[in-house]
Amino acid sequence: MSDAKHQVLKGGGVTSPLGFVAAGVAAGIKPSGKRDLALIVSQGPAVAAATFTTNQVKAAPVRVSMRSIRGGTARAILANSGNANACTGVPGIDDAKEMTALAALLLGCKERQVLICSTGRIGRPMPMMKVRKGIRKAVKGLSPTGGRDAAKAIMTSDTVDKQVAVRLRIDGKAVTIGGCAKGAGMIDPLMATMLCFVTTDAVIDHRTLARCLEEAVDLSFNRICVDGDMSTNDSVILLANGFAGNNALRSYHPSLPEFQRALNFVTREMARAIVLDGEGVSRFVEVNVKGAASVADARMAAECVAKSVLVKSAWAGGDPNWGRILCALGYSGARLREELVDIFYDGLQAVRGGRAGKVPDKRLKAVVRKAGFRITINLHLGEGEHTVYTTDLTEEYVRFNKSE
Amino acid sequence: MSDAKHQVLKGGGVTSPLGFVAAGVAAGIKPSGKRDLALIVSQGPAVAAATFTTNQVKAAPVRVSMRSIRGGTARAILANSGNANACTGVPGIDDAKEMTALAALLLGCKERQVLICSTGRIGRPMPMMKVRKGIRKAVKGLSPTGGRDAAKAIMTSDTVDKQVAVRLRIDGKAVTIGGCAKGAGMIDPLMATMLCFVTTDAVIDHRTLARCLEEAVDLSFNRICVDGDMSTNDSVILLANGFAGNNALRSYHPSLPEFQRALNFVTREMARAIVLDGEGVSRFVEVNVKGAASVADARMAAECVAKSVLVKSAWAGGDPNWGRILCALGYSGARLREELVDIFYDGLQAVRGGRAGKVPDKRLKAVVRKAGFRITINLHLGEGEHTVYTTDLTEEYVRFNKSE
Repeated sequence: MSDAKHQVLKGGGVTSPLGFVAAGVAAGIKPSGKRDLALIVSQGPAVAAATFTTNQVKAAPVRVSMRSIRGGTARAILANSGNANACTGVPGIDDAKEMTALAALLLGCKERQVLICSTGRIGRPMPMMKVRKGIRKAVKGLSPTGGRDAAKAIMTSDTVDKQVAVRLRIDGKAVTIGGCAKGAGMIDPLMATMLCFVTTDAVIDHRTLARCLEEAVDLSFNRICVDGDMSTNDSVILLANGFAGNNALRSYHPSLPEFQRALNFVTREMARAIVLDGEGVSRFVEVNVKGAASVADARMAAECVAKSVLVKSAWAGGDPNWGRILCALGYSGARLREELVDIFYDGLQAVRGGRAGKVPDKRLKAVVRKAGFRITINLHLGEGEHTVYTTDLTEEYVRFNKSE
Repeated sequence: MSDAKHQVLKGGGVTSPLGFVAAGVAAGIKPSGKRDLALIVSQGPAVAAATFTTNQVKAAPVRVSMRSIRGGTARAILANSGNANACTGVPGIDDAKEMTALAALLLGCKERQVLICSTGRIGRPMPMMKVRKGIRKAVKGLSPTGGRDAAKAIMTSDTVDKQVAVRLRIDGKAVTIGGCAKGAGMIDPLMATMLCFVTTDAVIDHRTLARCLEEAVDLSFNRICVDGDMSTNDSVILLANGFAGNNALRSYHPSLPEFQRALNFVTREMARAIVLDGEGVSRFVEVNVKGAASVADARMAAECVAKSVLVKSAWAGGDPNWGRILCALGYSGARLREELVDIFYDGLQAVRGGRAGKVPDKRLKAVVRKAGFRITINLHLGEGEHTVYTTDLTEEYVRFNKSE
């Protein structure tokens, strides 16, 4: 990251780029009375790209937004917490559409220009009376400093709001990228909904924007949640309104790599914040697999270790227990020769050639007792490499998830 | 099961069939001083079949036994708890071989006639001094009533020993099947080692025996642990010594189906006992998927629900939370049309056509609060059906697994 040319804007978020306003209001969807409706609006037309859950069971707002995004432009993102509007059938779709229609009417844009997201409990009808009032309130409350309120309004079991913004210079113009996100739930397997909204004032064409988002998501959110394990509502949306006035960022623009790097930073920071705020999480662990026979093998191996309940439980107790890691590698599906496997805990070699290394258990325990550490696994079979970010599995997690 | 012609022998186990003796001694491998070395011996030659873990990382005893079983016959099973002899490299293989050689010498049979299994912590060398003494002690202690001691000696974190025996009549002769097993650890994903030893005095040829075991394992142990999730040491071994004197059970023998049924009963009882004795388990749950587009789809769907950490955590809190089940189905990989899915809790319809059914939440909660219940999922796409047995995920489980 030392070559990064962007600067982090302290306290920045989705309203840091020019031409974006936002609001976060309490509509009464959450019984707690906390903020539960967020609205992010571009003051001019914006190109839009998004990635949605791969889960076959998709929430109504996801279905609606997937259709709307096809146009490649959007003006606003409307998101509520407290109710996922998932598994709600045709009435759920109708509710999601009504929400976008009302916001569009009040904002003076087309229905399809409003992307919609929901997060919360599955299978409950949306309390539309409250939602309608909330949307009116949100539109009235839109402000160039509303980013933080919007970030708060999408929180569910998150303990802190998640925001970031960076600025870089392109063609002599200041270009800003801002983001907010919500996570919670254990990240891996991630079934609690993850939402991330990114705004930028860069001038960029739709195709390039979509490619940039794809890379950014691949290097961030796709590394904290196993692909197949996405929730019914996961959505990442990126809006670019061009207010910065740089020359359009096409594939041959010399500053495109810098823009990509800055975007990657934003999504990675959001992904990291999500993991660190996981329910009952006490450790942040990077699992790095290298020397795999292929990249696909590396991915299978890293994800299998990162989601092994036994491995994660051991970490929660500060127990290195590398045997459980070897065991998880063994059933991961990745090609493996047991006698070649090396495993390191923050650089200390726990396993050499499939057997205990010479580092005393005491030193490995000291690593695993830390709040963050890195497991490096070398399979010595090829060039495949992949990294996954995960956590330990604590009793608090189970306690949290055993009731609503 | 109403057509079963076998009779359950109360208190029976691996020494219930004629011509089997066993012992279970304390060799000092377990620091607790409890029994940790089991020996089961047939007094005459026996045909043998076995299934071993599919994990690529296989413990030394598994590697040794996989070679020995190729001969199709065996005289003895030697098994220790307290040390898995896994990830121990060439010295581990040498130790496992020495154990079989010593037992063979003392029993007066060939080395390859002794099958070996180990269970316990991974990555620690076998304490061979203690093991050698233990083997001598076990051989001296062999007895026709030693089945229970053997069952006790293979226990790790199991809270009760697991045994069963049944008797049926074939060709006018009493044929007996006995078994013992150890499980513990959460069953799904099962990474704690599962061992099961079955003995019978039936006359049966090797090929038929192997087929019978395959079916029995498929209907029992393969339904409590996801295939890929096996530990480094899992082993199921079946010995048949022919002491009953029935006509050989070949594929066309009219009583073969009855024998199969009795064997299925034995392995299913052992599988059930393993699940019920899972660490910190408070609920036994049957997940039955039907109407899937294929049997493979049904299996993917059932296993995905049965191992979802979020689904299992909800059960631990007595929360039906069918949304989490739908979500797990959505990422299971099974073909799915959300609007067709029905979900039942002990027959009460929680989900109808992908949406909340009319049964009040209160009644669903009453089901999930029970110590055992059945989730039935109908995908309404085809004829595929599969059942998996699983448990809830409790804080006790995490507490148990977070340290050695």
